[in-house]
Amino acid sequence: MTGFPARDPDYAERVRRSFAKQAFMATIGARILRVEPGEVDLVLEASAAIAQQHGFAHGGAIAGLADTACGYAALSLMSSSTGVLTVEFKINLLAPARAPRLVALGRVVRPGRSLTVAQAEVFGEDAGGDRTPVALLTATLASIAGRDGISD
Amino acid sequence: MTGFPARDPDYAERVRRSFAKQAFMATIGARILRVEPGEVDLVLEASAAIAQQHGFAHGGAIAGLADTACGYAALSLMSSSTGVLTVEFKINLLAPARAPRLVALGRVVRPGRSLTVAQAEVFGEDAGGDRTPVALLTATLASIAGRDGISD
Amino acid sequence: MTGFPARDPDYAERVRRSFAKQAFMATIGARILRVEPGEVDLVLEASAAIAQQHGFAHGGAIAGLADTACGYAALSLMSSSTGVLTVEFKINLLAPARAPRLVALGRVVRPGRSLTVAQAEVFGEDAGGDRTPVALLTATLASIAGRDGISD
Amino acid sequence: MTGFPARDPDYAERVRRSFAKQAFMATIGARILRVEPGEVDLVLEASAAIAQQHGFAHGGAIAGLADTACGYAALSLMSSSTGVLTVEFKINLLAPARAPRLVALGRVVRPGRSLTVAQAEVFGEDAGGDRTPVALLTATLASIAGRDGISD
Repeated sequence: MTGFPARDPDYAERVRRSFAKQAFMATIGARILRVEPGEVDLVLEASAAIAQQHGFAHGGAIAGLADTACGYAALSLMSSSTGVLTVEFKINLLAPARAPRLVALGRVVRPGRSLTVAQAEVFGEDAGGDRTPVALLTATLASIAGRDGISD
Repeated sequence: MTGFPARDPDYAERVRRSFAKQAFMATIGARILRVEPGEVDLVLEASAAIAQQHGFAHGGAIAGLADTACGYAALSLMSSSTGVLTVEFKINLLAPARAPRLVALGRVVRPGRSLTVAQAEVFGEDAGGDRTPVALLTATLASIAGRDGISD
Repeated sequence: MTGFPARDPDYAERVRRSFAKQAFMATIGARILRVEPGEVDLVLEASAAIAQQHGFAHGGAIAGLADTACGYAALSLMSSSTGVLTVEFKINLLAPARAPRLVALGRVVRPGRSLTVAQAEVFGEDAGGDRTPVALLTATLASIAGRDGISD
Repeated sequence: MTGFPARDPDYAERVRRSFAKQAFMATIGARILRVEPGEVDLVLEASAAIAQQHGFAHGGAIAGLADTACGYAALSLMSSSTGVLTVEFKINLLAPARAPRLVALGRVVRPGRSLTVAQAEVFGEDAGGDRTPVALLTATLASIAGRDGISD
């Protein structure tokens, strides 16, 4: 547990509603596993649709999953009228992603009024539930208030 | 022009063949615009399938496009028996991507025997062909030789 | 030239005054070569004091030089009451820095009201003035207004 | 504990000997606190010599400290004939570094034959030993074998 308090009691519902609007998450086959204050876990069933040329999951799909886990970990700590945008992220691809499932654990490292830093570990998960590290992503997320169309 | 020489005379055909195997590029709607030694330009017709919650193109799709432009810019300089894997990348999202088309210009910054550094600028392009900066990505790519299943 | 306009006519003097307060720049032997709107060039005469274990310039000294070039490139575009803080940066070390001088060229990529993205190329320069690439750094800089002690 | 095994039984002595050769570490006032397989902790007594314009510790000094902690965490797992070079790193500066001491905890995330990924958390430490987060750095380190002058 990150120990950071949620300012919006409906944080989990808000994260889930916003996630459901992300067509790209449906496109890559991602869904939410868990939402807690400052923590969001996502899972992706790897499919041919996200493969790169060697048949592994593409770095862009892995980055999209991990960035989204970070973004919603950050949003879970923001007040109800605030939206989140990714400022930047950096990802290290630790090993080719061959596993049938990818799990991204997004955690807020440092919440802030205007900027939040979060990190996501991505694991490949085999049929037996064993996890191997696939990627590590660090992101800077901006809190956006009062800008049209950005309220989540 | 980057001025770096291609070691494989068939570099362009090799890049195009490899790109065609990337199901994720088809999934996000990307295709190749141009291949030169050390330079690969990609274009993506933005669709609802890659949107994030505010309707902009998702950072993961943008990163996937830009990472791929960098990877193939690097591969274009490698010898014919060598494959490319992304070690890490970092992306700054400069502005929300609202434009109907995204163009990623991948350029090798520093080619190396085992590691290559490349950079991609991503622009939004409107119907009239005007471009606005959307993202800047820097990547480290590894040359992989003699590993099964990684020859492009 | 970046083409971005300076909002403060005294931008160059302001950058130079602030740079002069940075003890760390004196410690590593850095000084300003050139200040233009959105562009700051720094030079460092490499000394034993900044060496790492193999005798090359330490990545931290190179990063400090390049980050500072980015920070002042950003500050040169800010209004007079605004200070600059680095949010994050990423550096690729392209080759060991053996040259007697290091030159960092800081350029604003995207100015913004609250966040600016800048990039610095670092070159080694030999006695004859020939330059070889040493590092590439991308930084996110925050504009700070109304916070005590941060006005440059 | 990272749980990664040291291949060189003299890893700790080797790290300490190499660190002692880094003039830049002496310049910024850093020393080793602790060396374990895959883990190196450094401490820096903040001095005027490393200040930026607002009087905080300069991002370059913090990055140099954290990069070095990562580099030696990586070296601690390498065989005795192998040297380490930083390929790239990314740092998020979480809060201005006002504390009299900075502590960097370098940890290997993923060891590899040619590339190792490590991460360092940097804390400010007050007189009573209380720590507050200052920075988070992720680095890619290369194992260098058989290159003249790079054996640590």
